[in-house]
Amino acid sequence: MPRYRLTIEYDGSPFVGWQRQDNGPSVQQVLEEAIARFCGQHCGTVGAGRTDAGVHALGQVAHVDLPRCYEQTTVRDAINFHLRPQPVAILDAAVVADTFHARFSAISRLYRYRILNRRAAPTLDRGHVWWVSQLLDIQAMAEAARRLVGRHDFSSFRSTACQARSPLKTLDALTVTAEGAEIRVTAEARSFLHNQVRILVGTLKWVGEGRWSAADVVAALAARDRRCGGPTAPAEGLYLSAIRYPADDSSFQGIGSAADQNADEQVEEDEADGG
Amino acid sequence: MPRYRLTIEYDGSPFVGWQRQDNGPSVQQVLEEAIARFCGQHCGTVGAGRTDAGVHALGQVAHVDLPRCYEQTTVRDAINFHLRPQPVAILDAAVVADTFHARFSAISRLYRYRILNRRAAPTLDRGHVWWVSQLLDIQAMAEAARRLVGRHDFSSFRSTACQARSPLKTLDALTVTAEGAEIRVTAEARSFLHNQVRILVGTLKWVGEGRWSAADVVAALAARDRRCGGPTAPAEGLYLSAIRYPADDSSFQGIGSAADQNADEQVEEDEADGG
Repeated sequence: MPRYRLTIEYDGSPFVGWQRQDNGPSVQQVLEEAIARFCGQHCGTVGAGRTDAGVHALGQVAHVDLPRCYEQTTVRDAINFHLRPQPVAILDAAVVADTFHARFSAISRLYRYRILNRRAAPTLDRGHVWWVSQLLDIQAMAEAARRLVGRHDFSSFRSTACQARSPLKTLDALTVTAEGAEIRVTAEARSFLHNQVRILVGTLKWVGEGRWSAADVVAALAARDRRCGGPTAPAEGLYLSAIRYPADDSSFQGIGSAADQNADEQVEEDEADGG
Repeated sequence: MPRYRLTIEYDGSPFVGWQRQDNGPSVQQVLEEAIARFCGQHCGTVGAGRTDAGVHALGQVAHVDLPRCYEQTTVRDAINFHLRPQPVAILDAAVVADTFHARFSAISRLYRYRILNRRAAPTLDRGHVWWVSQLLDIQAMAEAARRLVGRHDFSSFRSTACQARSPLKTLDALTVTAEGAEIRVTAEARSFLHNQVRILVGTLKWVGEGRWSAADVVAALAARDRRCGGPTAPAEGLYLSAIRYPADDSSFQGIGSAADQNADEQVEEDEADGG
Protein backbone atom coordinates (compact mmCIF):
# COMPACT_ATOMS: atom_id res chain seq x y z
CA MET A 1 0.00 0.00 0.00
CA PRO A 2 2.14 2.93 -1.20
CA ARG A 3 1.52 6.24 0.54
CA TYR A 4 1.08 9.43 -1.48
CA ARG A 5 1.27 13.01 -0.32
CA LEU A 6 -1.24 15.21 -2.16
CA THR A 7 -0.94 19.00 -2.34
CA ILE A 8 -4.41 20.41 -2.83
CA GLU A 9 -5.93 23.73 -3.88
CA TYR A 10 -9.61 24.47 -3.41
CA ASP A 11 -12.26 27.11 -3.38
CA GLY A 12 -13.92 26.52 -0.02
CA SER A 13 -17.13 28.40 -0.89
CA PRO A 14 -19.38 25.40 -1.67
CA PHE A 15 -18.05 23.15 1.09
CA VAL A 16 -18.87 22.58 4.77
CA GLY A 17 -15.10 22.48 5.28
CA TRP A 18 -12.28 20.01 4.74
CA GLN A 19 -13.61 17.32 7.05
CA ARG A 20 -16.43 14.92 6.16
CA GLN A 21 -19.66 15.96 7.88
CA ASP A 22 -23.30 15.00 7.69
CA ASN A 23 -24.61 18.46 6.85
CA GLY A 24 -23.20 18.94 3.36
CA PRO A 25 -20.39 18.26 0.90
CA SER A 26 -16.84 18.45 2.23
CA VAL A 27 -13.56 18.71 0.36
CA GLN A 28 -12.46 15.40 1.85
CA GLN A 29 -15.60 13.70 0.59
CA VAL A 30 -15.30 14.87 -3.01
CA LEU A 31 -11.58 14.03 -2.93
CA GLU A 32 -12.17 10.51 -1.61
CA GLU A 33 -14.95 9.97 -4.16
CA ALA A 34 -12.57 11.00 -6.95
CA ILE A 35 -9.87 8.67 -5.61
CA ALA A 36 -12.40 5.82 -5.46
CA ARG A 37 -13.42 6.39 -9.09
CA PHE A 38 -9.74 6.32 -10.03
CA CYS A 39 -8.58 3.22 -8.18
CA GLY A 40 -11.83 1.32 -7.73
CA GLN A 41 -12.03 1.29 -3.97
CA HIS A 42 -12.45 3.63 -1.02
CA CYS A 43 -9.18 5.02 0.35
CA GLY A 44 -9.33 7.27 3.40
CA THR A 45 -7.43 10.55 3.35
CA VAL A 46 -5.86 12.47 6.23
CA GLY A 47 -5.55 16.24 5.85
CA ALA A 48 -2.91 18.46 7.44
CA GLY A 49 -5.42 21.11 8.50
CA ARG A 50 -9.16 20.89 9.06
CA THR A 51 -10.26 24.04 7.31
CA ASP A 52 -13.70 25.33 8.28
CA ALA A 53 -16.69 25.93 6.03
CA GLY A 54 -15.88 28.50 3.35
CA VAL A 55 -12.13 28.57 4.03
CA HIS A 56 -9.96 28.17 0.92
CA ALA A 57 -6.68 26.37 0.37
CA LEU A 58 -3.70 27.08 -1.87
CA GLY A 59 -1.60 24.27 -0.44
CA GLN A 60 -3.55 21.91 1.79
CA VAL A 61 -1.75 18.59 2.17
CA ALA A 62 -3.28 15.14 2.63
CA HIS A 63 -1.90 11.63 2.60
CA VAL A 64 -3.59 8.55 1.24
CA ASP A 65 -2.60 4.89 0.90
CA LEU A 66 -3.45 3.61 -2.57
CA PRO A 67 -3.98 -0.10 -3.32
CA ARG A 68 -1.09 -0.25 -5.81
CA CYS A 69 1.77 1.76 -7.22
CA TYR A 70 1.08 4.37 -9.86
CA GLU A 71 3.26 7.03 -11.43
CA GLN A 72 3.06 10.21 -9.38
CA THR A 73 1.87 12.23 -12.37
CA THR A 74 -0.78 9.59 -13.09
CA VAL A 75 -2.13 9.91 -9.56
CA ARG A 76 -2.28 13.71 -9.88
CA ASP A 77 -3.87 13.75 -13.33
CA ALA A 78 -6.33 10.91 -12.73
CA ILE A 79 -7.65 12.32 -9.46
CA ASN A 80 -7.95 15.74 -11.10
CA PHE A 81 -9.92 14.16 -13.96
CA HIS A 82 -12.38 12.62 -11.52
CA LEU A 83 -12.58 15.75 -9.35
CA ARG A 84 -14.08 17.87 -12.09
CA PRO A 85 -16.27 19.89 -12.01
CA GLN A 86 -15.59 20.43 -8.30
CA PRO A 87 -13.36 23.45 -7.50
CA VAL A 88 -10.72 21.16 -6.00
CA ALA A 89 -7.40 20.35 -7.69
CA ILE A 90 -4.36 18.21 -6.91
CA LEU A 91 -1.31 20.38 -7.57
CA ASP A 92 1.18 17.63 -6.79
CA ALA A 93 1.24 13.95 -5.83
CA ALA A 94 4.41 12.41 -4.40
CA VAL A 95 5.26 8.99 -3.03
CA VAL A 96 6.31 9.29 0.62
CA ALA A 97 7.48 6.92 3.33
CA ASP A 98 4.64 5.23 5.17
CA THR A 99 5.83 7.00 8.30
CA PHE A 100 4.78 10.30 6.73
CA HIS A 101 1.61 11.70 8.28
CA ALA A 102 0.06 14.79 6.69
CA ARG A 103 -1.09 16.13 10.02
CA PHE A 104 1.37 14.96 12.64
CA SER A 105 4.54 15.26 10.54
CA ALA A 106 3.87 18.92 9.75
CA ILE A 107 6.32 21.34 11.37
CA SER A 108 4.67 24.52 10.18
CA ARG A 109 1.39 25.79 8.80
CA LEU A 110 1.04 29.00 6.86
CA TYR A 111 -2.25 30.85 6.56
CA ARG A 112 -2.99 33.96 4.54
CA TYR A 113 -5.93 36.27 5.10
CA ARG A 114 -7.05 38.69 2.39
CA ILE A 115 -8.91 41.92 3.24
CA LEU A 116 -10.20 44.07 0.39
CA ASN A 117 -10.02 47.53 1.94
CA ARG A 118 -11.85 50.01 -0.27
CA ARG A 119 -15.21 51.68 -0.62
CA ALA A 120 -16.32 49.55 -3.57
CA ALA A 121 -17.48 45.98 -2.99
CA PRO A 122 -15.46 43.16 -4.57
CA THR A 123 -16.36 42.03 -8.09
CA LEU A 124 -13.77 39.56 -9.40
CA ASP A 125 -12.72 38.56 -5.86
CA ARG A 126 -16.21 38.15 -4.47
CA GLY A 127 -16.26 35.29 -1.96
CA HIS A 128 -12.48 35.27 -1.87
CA VAL A 129 -11.78 38.31 0.33
CA TRP A 130 -13.22 40.04 3.39
CA TRP A 131 -14.57 43.36 2.21
CA VAL A 132 -13.88 46.15 4.72
CA SER A 133 -15.00 49.52 3.39
CA GLN A 134 -13.61 51.70 6.22
CA LEU A 135 -10.00 52.64 5.54
CA LEU A 136 -7.73 50.72 7.92
CA ASP A 137 -4.45 51.92 9.45
CA ILE A 138 -2.07 49.29 8.16
CA GLN A 139 0.93 50.48 10.17
CA ALA A 140 -1.05 50.23 13.40
CA MET A 141 -2.20 46.73 12.44
CA ALA A 142 1.36 45.65 11.64
CA GLU A 143 2.64 46.99 14.96
CA ALA A 144 -0.11 45.23 16.94
CA ALA A 145 0.59 42.02 15.00
CA ARG A 146 4.24 42.11 16.08
CA ARG A 147 3.13 42.13 19.73
CA LEU A 148 1.33 38.81 19.24
CA VAL A 149 4.28 36.88 17.84
CA GLY A 150 5.84 34.34 20.19
CA ARG A 151 4.73 31.69 22.66
CA HIS A 152 1.55 32.72 24.44
CA ASP A 153 -1.65 31.45 25.98
CA PHE A 154 -4.03 32.31 23.12
CA SER A 155 -7.26 31.61 25.03
CA SER A 156 -8.61 35.02 23.99
CA PHE A 157 -8.09 34.06 20.36
CA ARG A 158 -9.64 30.61 20.17
CA SER A 159 -13.18 29.53 19.39
CA THR A 160 -15.18 28.59 22.45
CA ALA A 161 -15.70 25.28 20.64
CA CYS A 162 -11.94 24.68 20.39
CA GLN A 163 -11.04 21.23 21.68
CA ALA A 164 -7.27 21.62 21.99
CA ARG A 165 -6.08 20.57 25.43
CA SER A 166 -3.69 23.48 25.74
CA PRO A 167 -4.17 27.09 24.64
CA LEU A 168 -0.39 27.56 24.54
CA LYS A 169 0.87 28.10 21.01
CA THR A 170 3.92 29.65 19.42
CA LEU A 171 3.04 32.11 16.69
CA ASP A 172 6.20 32.20 14.58
CA ALA A 173 5.11 35.06 12.37
CA LEU A 174 2.17 37.41 11.97
CA THR A 175 2.67 40.07 9.31
CA VAL A 176 0.43 42.70 7.76
CA THR A 177 1.24 43.97 4.27
CA ALA A 178 -0.62 45.94 1.63
CA GLU A 179 -0.78 45.60 -2.12
CA GLY A 180 -3.05 48.14 -3.72
CA ALA A 181 -6.41 47.98 -1.96
CA GLU A 182 -5.65 44.56 -0.53
CA ILE A 183 -4.34 43.99 2.98
CA ARG A 184 -2.72 40.62 3.59
CA VAL A 185 -2.27 39.09 6.99
CA THR A 186 0.10 36.13 7.04
CA ALA A 187 0.36 33.81 10.01
CA GLU A 188 2.75 30.95 10.58
CA ALA A 189 2.90 28.45 13.40
CA ARG A 190 3.46 24.76 14.02
CA SER A 191 -0.25 24.56 14.75
CA PHE A 192 -3.16 26.87 15.45
CA LEU A 193 -6.12 26.84 17.78
CA HIS A 194 -9.60 26.67 16.30
CA ASN A 195 -10.46 29.99 14.59
CA GLN A 196 -7.19 31.48 15.87
CA VAL A 197 -6.20 33.17 12.61
CA ARG A 198 -9.70 34.54 12.02
CA ILE A 199 -9.91 35.97 15.56
CA LEU A 200 -6.43 37.47 15.22
CA VAL A 201 -7.53 39.11 11.96
CA GLY A 202 -10.82 40.34 13.44
CA THR A 203 -8.86 41.86 16.31
CA LEU A 204 -6.31 43.48 13.99
CA LYS A 205 -9.20 44.99 12.05
CA TRP A 206 -10.33 46.71 15.26
CA VAL A 207 -6.83 48.12 15.56
CA GLY A 208 -6.94 49.26 11.92
CA GLU A 209 -10.21 51.09 12.64
CA GLY A 210 -8.60 52.89 15.58
CA ARG A 211 -11.03 51.20 17.94
CA TRP A 212 -8.23 49.36 19.72
CA SER A 213 -4.55 50.19 20.28
CA ALA A 214 -1.70 47.71 20.23
CA ALA A 215 -1.79 47.92 24.02
CA ASP A 216 -5.44 46.84 24.00
CA VAL A 217 -4.46 43.79 21.97
CA VAL A 218 -1.72 42.92 24.46
CA ALA A 219 -4.24 43.32 27.29
CA ALA A 220 -6.70 41.06 25.47
CA LEU A 221 -3.99 38.43 25.11
CA ALA A 222 -3.14 38.68 28.81
CA ALA A 223 -6.82 38.26 29.76
CA ARG A 224 -6.83 34.67 28.44
CA ASP A 225 -10.58 34.85 27.91
CA ARG A 226 -12.35 34.59 24.55
CA ARG A 227 -14.75 37.37 25.58
CA CYS A 228 -11.75 39.74 25.71
CA GLY A 229 -10.54 39.05 22.13
CA GLY A 230 -11.83 40.69 18.97
CA PRO A 231 -14.47 39.32 16.58
CA THR A 232 -13.97 36.34 14.28
CA ALA A 233 -13.23 37.46 10.72
CA PRO A 234 -15.33 35.74 8.02
CA ALA A 235 -14.16 32.48 6.48
CA GLU A 236 -14.15 33.75 2.89
CA GLY A 237 -10.88 35.72 3.30
CA LEU A 238 -8.88 32.83 4.78
CA TYR A 239 -6.49 30.60 2.83
CA LEU A 240 -4.48 27.64 4.08
CA SER A 241 -1.39 28.57 2.06
CA ALA A 242 1.18 25.90 2.75
CA ILE A 243 2.29 23.15 5.09
CA ARG A 244 5.92 22.52 5.81
CA TYR A 245 7.48 19.16 6.67
CA PRO A 246 10.97 18.21 7.88
CA ALA A 247 13.63 18.15 5.17
CA ASP A 248 11.06 19.57 2.83
CA ASP A 249 12.72 20.85 -0.29
CA SER A 250 9.51 22.04 -1.87
CA SER A 251 8.93 25.66 -2.79
CA PHE A 252 7.47 26.54 0.61
CA GLN A 253 9.60 29.15 2.35
CA GLY A 254 8.68 29.68 5.99
CA ILE A 255 8.47 33.34 6.92
CA GLY A 256 9.30 32.71 10.56
CA SER A 257 12.55 31.27 11.86
CA ALA A 258 11.48 29.52 15.02
CA ALA A 259 9.33 26.80 13.46
CA ASP A 260 11.73 24.01 14.25
CA GLN A 261 12.15 25.07 17.84
CA ASN A 262 8.58 24.24 18.83
CA ALA A 263 8.83 20.51 18.63
CA ASP A 264 7.00 20.32 21.95
CA GLU A 265 3.86 21.68 20.34
CA GLN A 266 2.78 18.61 18.50
CA VAL A 267 -0.68 18.80 17.04
CA GLU A 268 -2.93 16.98 19.46
CA GLU A 269 -5.00 14.02 18.44
CA ASP A 270 -8.28 15.74 19.24
CA GLU A 271 -7.36 19.19 18.03
CA ALA A 272 -9.49 21.03 15.52
CA ASP A 273 -6.79 22.83 13.58
CA GLY A 274 -9.01 25.24 11.73
CA GLY A 275 -6.89 28.35 11.46
CA MET B 1 -24.68 69.05 -16.64
CA PRO B 2 -21.41 68.20 -14.89
CA ARG B 3 -19.35 65.44 -16.48
CA TYR B 4 -17.93 62.64 -14.35
CA ARG B 5 -15.20 60.18 -15.18
CA LEU B 6 -15.93 56.75 -13.69
CA THR B 7 -13.23 54.11 -13.19
CA ILE B 8 -14.90 50.71 -13.24
CA GLU B 9 -14.00 47.16 -12.25
CA TYR B 10 -16.10 44.20 -13.33
CA ASP B 11 -16.28 40.47 -13.66
CA GLY B 12 -17.27 40.04 -17.30
CA SER B 13 -18.52 36.45 -16.91
CA PRO B 14 -22.27 37.16 -16.75
CA PHE B 15 -22.30 39.90 -19.38
CA VAL B 16 -22.59 40.05 -23.16
CA GLY B 17 -19.82 42.65 -22.99
CA TRP B 18 -19.51 46.32 -22.15
CA GLN B 19 -21.85 47.60 -24.82
CA ARG B 20 -25.64 47.48 -24.63
CA GLN B 21 -26.98 44.69 -26.84
CA ASP B 22 -30.31 42.98 -27.38
CA ASN B 23 -29.10 39.48 -26.55
CA GLY B 24 -28.42 39.81 -22.84
CA PRO B 25 -27.26 41.99 -19.96
CA SER B 26 -24.32 44.29 -20.59
CA VAL B 27 -22.10 46.14 -18.15
CA GLN B 28 -23.22 49.44 -19.66
CA GLN B 29 -26.87 48.55 -19.11
CA VAL B 30 -26.52 47.63 -15.43
CA LEU B 31 -24.36 50.72 -14.89
CA GLU B 32 -26.88 53.03 -16.54
CA GLU B 33 -29.72 51.43 -14.59
CA ALA B 34 -27.82 52.04 -11.34
CA ILE B 35 -27.15 55.66 -12.34
CA ALA B 36 -30.85 56.12 -13.15
CA ARG B 37 -31.87 54.79 -9.74
CA PHE B 38 -29.42 57.21 -8.15
CA CYS B 39 -30.30 60.41 -9.98
CA GLY B 40 -33.82 59.71 -11.14
CA GLN B 41 -33.32 59.87 -14.88
CA HIS B 42 -31.52 58.05 -17.66
CA CYS B 43 -27.97 59.25 -18.31
CA GLY B 44 -26.05 57.69 -21.18
CA THR B 45 -22.50 56.49 -20.55
CA VAL B 46 -19.56 56.30 -22.96
CA GLY B 47 -16.92 53.68 -22.26
CA ALA B 48 -13.24 53.87 -23.20
CA GLY B 49 -13.10 50.30 -24.49
CA ARG B 50 -15.88 48.05 -25.75
CA THR B 51 -14.91 44.83 -24.01
CA ASP B 52 -16.38 41.65 -25.49
CA ALA B 53 -18.56 39.07 -23.77
CA GLY B 54 -16.76 37.50 -20.82
CA VAL B 55 -13.87 40.00 -20.80
CA HIS B 56 -13.13 41.51 -17.38
CA ALA B 57 -12.02 45.00 -16.38
CA LEU B 58 -9.82 46.27 -13.59
CA GLY B 59 -9.88 49.85 -14.81
CA GLN B 60 -12.45 50.49 -17.52
CA VAL B 61 -13.26 54.18 -17.81
CA ALA B 62 -16.57 55.77 -18.77
CA HIS B 63 -17.89 59.29 -18.74
CA VAL B 64 -21.40 60.39 -17.92
CA ASP B 65 -23.17 63.75 -17.66
CA LEU B 66 -25.27 63.90 -14.51
CA PRO B 67 -28.27 66.27 -14.14
CA ARG B 68 -26.72 68.11 -11.19
CA CYS B 69 -23.54 68.43 -9.13
CA TYR B 70 -22.81 65.82 -6.48
CA GLU B 71 -19.75 65.19 -4.35
CA GLN B 72 -17.42 62.82 -6.18
CA THR B 73 -17.50 60.32 -3.33
CA THR B 74 -21.30 60.50 -3.30
CA VAL B 75 -21.42 59.59 -6.97
CA ARG B 76 -19.08 56.64 -6.41
CA ASP B 77 -20.84 55.31 -3.32
CA ALA B 78 -24.40 55.86 -4.56
CA ILE B 79 -23.82 54.15 -7.90
CA ASN B 80 -22.09 51.29 -6.09
CA PHE B 81 -25.06 50.97 -3.77
CA HIS B 82 -27.44 50.66 -6.72
CA LEU B 83 -25.12 48.34 -8.67
CA ARG B 84 -25.33 45.59 -6.10
CA PRO B 85 -25.56 42.62 -6.44
CA GLN B 86 -24.03 42.94 -9.90
CA PRO B 87 -20.27 42.20 -10.07
CA VAL B 88 -19.58 45.76 -11.22
CA ALA B 89 -18.01 48.43 -9.03
CA ILE B 90 -17.08 52.11 -9.37
CA LEU B 91 -13.53 52.46 -8.02
CA ASP B 92 -13.42 56.20 -8.54
CA ALA B 93 -15.62 59.06 -9.72
CA ALA B 94 -14.07 62.41 -10.67
CA VAL B 95 -15.47 65.62 -12.09
CA VAL B 96 -13.84 66.35 -15.47
CA ALA B 97 -14.07 69.06 -18.08
CA ASP B 98 -16.90 68.58 -20.52
CA THR B 99 -14.31 68.26 -23.27
CA PHE B 100 -13.17 65.00 -21.68
CA HIS B 101 -14.26 61.97 -23.68
CA ALA B 102 -13.63 58.53 -22.16
CA ARG B 103 -13.00 56.99 -25.56
CA PHE B 104 -11.50 59.67 -27.76
CA SER B 105 -9.39 61.40 -25.12
CA ALA B 106 -7.59 58.18 -24.21
CA ILE B 107 -3.92 58.10 -25.19
CA SER B 108 -3.22 54.56 -24.09
CA ARG B 109 -5.01 51.33 -23.25
CA LEU B 110 -3.48 48.58 -21.17
CA TYR B 111 -4.72 45.01 -21.33
CA ARG B 112 -3.57 42.06 -19.26
CA TYR B 113 -4.06 38.43 -20.17
CA ARG B 114 -3.78 35.68 -17.54
CA ILE B 115 -2.83 32.12 -18.50
CA LEU B 116 -2.87 29.46 -15.79
CA ASN B 117 -0.17 27.09 -17.02
CA ARG B 118 -0.27 23.89 -15.03
CA ARG B 119 -1.68 20.38 -15.19
CA ALA B 120 -4.43 21.02 -12.64
CA ALA B 121 -7.52 22.96 -13.68
CA PRO B 122 -8.21 26.30 -11.95
CA THR B 123 -10.27 26.29 -8.76
CA LEU B 124 -10.26 29.76 -7.16
CA ASP B 125 -9.51 31.44 -10.50
CA ARG B 126 -12.07 29.55 -12.54
CA GLY B 127 -13.52 31.82 -15.22
CA HIS B 128 -10.76 34.35 -14.62
CA VAL B 129 -7.84 32.69 -16.42
CA TRP B 130 -7.18 30.68 -19.55
CA TRP B 131 -6.19 27.21 -18.42
CA VAL B 132 -3.38 25.76 -20.57
CA SER B 133 -2.19 22.41 -19.23
CA GLN B 134 0.76 21.91 -21.59
CA LEU B 135 3.90 23.54 -20.20
CA LEU B 136 4.72 26.64 -22.25
CA ASP B 137 8.17 28.02 -23.07
CA ILE B 138 7.92 31.49 -21.57
CA GLN B 139 11.27 32.72 -22.91
CA ALA B 140 10.24 31.81 -26.45
CA MET B 141 6.91 33.59 -25.97
CA ALA B 142 8.64 36.71 -24.61
CA GLU B 143 11.05 36.78 -27.54
CA ALA B 144 8.25 36.41 -30.10
CA ALA B 145 6.29 39.13 -28.31
CA ARG B 146 9.20 41.56 -28.69
CA ARG B 147 9.06 41.06 -32.46
CA LEU B 148 5.48 42.30 -32.56
CA VAL B 149 6.07 45.60 -30.81
CA GLY B 150 5.97 48.71 -33.00
CA ARG B 151 3.86 50.10 -35.80
CA HIS B 152 2.54 47.36 -38.07
CA ASP B 153 -0.33 46.28 -40.23
CA PHE B 154 -2.01 43.87 -37.80
CA SER B 155 -4.47 42.38 -40.32
CA SER B 156 -3.39 38.87 -39.30
CA PHE B 157 -4.31 39.70 -35.70
CA ARG B 158 -7.75 41.21 -36.05
CA SER B 159 -11.17 39.63 -36.00
CA THR B 160 -12.70 39.21 -39.45
CA ALA B 161 -15.60 41.22 -38.00
CA CYS B 162 -13.31 44.13 -37.12
CA GLN B 163 -14.72 47.39 -38.47
CA ALA B 164 -11.65 49.60 -38.07
CA ARG B 165 -10.85 51.41 -41.31
CA SER B 166 -7.13 50.86 -40.94
CA PRO B 167 -5.30 47.77 -39.69
CA LEU B 168 -2.25 49.93 -38.88
CA LYS B 169 -1.65 50.12 -35.16
CA THR B 170 1.31 50.86 -32.93
CA LEU B 171 1.81 48.27 -30.24
CA ASP B 172 3.78 50.14 -27.59
CA ALA B 173 4.48 47.14 -25.42
CA LEU B 174 3.84 43.40 -25.38
CA THR B 175 5.48 41.57 -22.50
CA VAL B 176 5.30 38.03 -21.18
CA THR B 177 6.09 37.37 -17.53
CA ALA B 178 5.56 34.49 -15.14
CA GLU B 179 4.53 34.37 -11.51
CA GLY B 180 4.27 30.86 -10.17
CA ALA B 181 2.04 28.87 -12.51
CA GLU B 182 0.59 32.03 -14.03
CA ILE B 183 1.81 33.57 -17.27
CA ARG B 184 0.87 37.20 -17.80
CA VAL B 185 0.80 38.87 -21.18
CA THR B 186 0.57 42.65 -20.99
CA ALA B 187 -0.23 44.75 -24.04
CA GLU B 188 -0.28 48.51 -24.37
CA ALA B 189 -1.32 50.68 -27.32
CA ARG B 190 -3.25 53.83 -28.06
CA SER B 191 -5.93 51.57 -29.47
CA PHE B 192 -6.38 47.98 -30.52
CA LEU B 193 -8.13 46.19 -33.34
CA HIS B 194 -11.06 43.93 -32.52
CA ASN B 195 -9.79 40.76 -30.77
CA GLN B 196 -6.20 41.89 -31.33
CA VAL B 197 -4.96 41.06 -27.83
CA ARG B 198 -6.69 37.70 -27.78
CA ILE B 199 -5.26 36.72 -31.18
CA LEU B 200 -1.79 37.89 -30.12
CA VAL B 201 -2.08 35.71 -27.00
CA GLY B 202 -3.40 32.72 -28.97
CA THR B 203 -0.44 33.09 -31.31
CA LEU B 204 2.07 33.41 -28.47
CA LYS B 205 0.61 30.24 -26.97
CA TRP B 206 1.50 28.42 -30.20
CA VAL B 207 5.05 29.72 -29.75
CA GLY B 208 5.05 28.53 -26.15
CA GLU B 209 4.03 25.05 -27.30
CA GLY B 210 6.93 24.97 -29.77
CA ARG B 211 4.47 24.78 -32.64
CA TRP B 212 5.62 28.14 -34.01
CA SER B 213 8.93 29.99 -33.84
CA ALA B 214 9.35 33.73 -33.45
CA ALA B 215 10.12 33.78 -37.18
CA ASP B 216 6.75 32.15 -37.90
CA VAL B 217 5.08 34.95 -35.94
CA VAL B 218 6.94 37.58 -37.94
CA ALA B 219 5.89 35.80 -41.16
CA ALA B 220 2.26 35.74 -39.97
CA LEU B 221 2.43 39.47 -39.32
CA ALA B 222 3.88 40.09 -42.77
CA ALA B 223 1.12 38.03 -44.41
CA ARG B 224 -1.51 40.61 -43.36
CA ASP B 225 -4.22 37.95 -43.50
CA ARG B 226 -6.29 36.74 -40.55
CA ARG B 227 -5.98 33.16 -41.79
CA CYS B 228 -2.22 33.39 -41.21
CA GLY B 229 -2.46 34.45 -37.55
CA GLY B 230 -2.89 32.16 -34.56
CA PRO B 231 -6.15 31.29 -32.79
CA THR B 232 -8.18 33.68 -30.65
CA ALA B 233 -7.55 33.08 -26.94
CA PRO B 234 -10.71 32.80 -24.80
CA ALA B 235 -12.30 35.90 -23.31
CA GLU B 236 -12.12 34.71 -19.69
CA GLY B 237 -8.38 35.43 -19.36
CA LEU B 238 -8.55 39.01 -20.65
CA TYR B 239 -8.65 42.13 -18.46
CA LEU B 240 -8.92 45.75 -19.53
CA SER B 241 -6.42 46.96 -16.92
CA ALA B 242 -6.19 50.70 -17.33
CA ILE B 243 -6.80 53.65 -19.62
CA ARG B 244 -4.43 56.58 -19.72
CA TYR B 245 -5.37 60.17 -20.50
CA PRO B 246 -3.26 63.27 -21.13
CA ALA B 247 -1.85 64.88 -17.97
CA ASP B 248 -3.23 61.96 -16.07
CA ASP B 249 -1.78 61.92 -12.60
CA SER B 250 -3.57 58.76 -11.57
CA SER B 251 -1.75 55.62 -10.55
CA PHE B 252 -1.58 54.24 -14.08
CA GLN B 253 2.01 53.83 -15.22
CA GLY B 254 2.35 53.08 -18.91
CA ILE B 255 4.80 50.27 -19.63
CA GLY B 256 5.64 51.51 -23.10
CA SER B 257 7.30 54.80 -23.91
CA ALA B 258 5.92 55.61 -27.33
CA ALA B 259 2.29 56.13 -26.39
CA ASP B 260 2.36 59.84 -26.89
CA GLN B 261 4.01 59.61 -30.30
CA ASN B 262 1.04 57.95 -31.94
CA ALA B 263 -1.29 60.87 -31.96
CA ASP B 264 -2.16 60.03 -35.56
CA GLU B 265 -3.83 56.83 -34.45
CA GLN B 266 -7.00 58.28 -33.07
CA VAL B 267 -9.63 55.73 -32.24
CA GLU B 268 -12.03 55.74 -35.14
CA GLU B 269 -15.71 56.50 -34.72
CA ASP B 270 -16.78 53.08 -35.95
CA GLU B 271 -14.05 51.06 -34.35
CA ALA B 272 -14.84 48.10 -32.14
CA ASP B 273 -12.05 48.43 -29.62
CA GLY B 274 -12.41 45.05 -28.01
CA GLY B 275 -8.86 44.09 -27.13
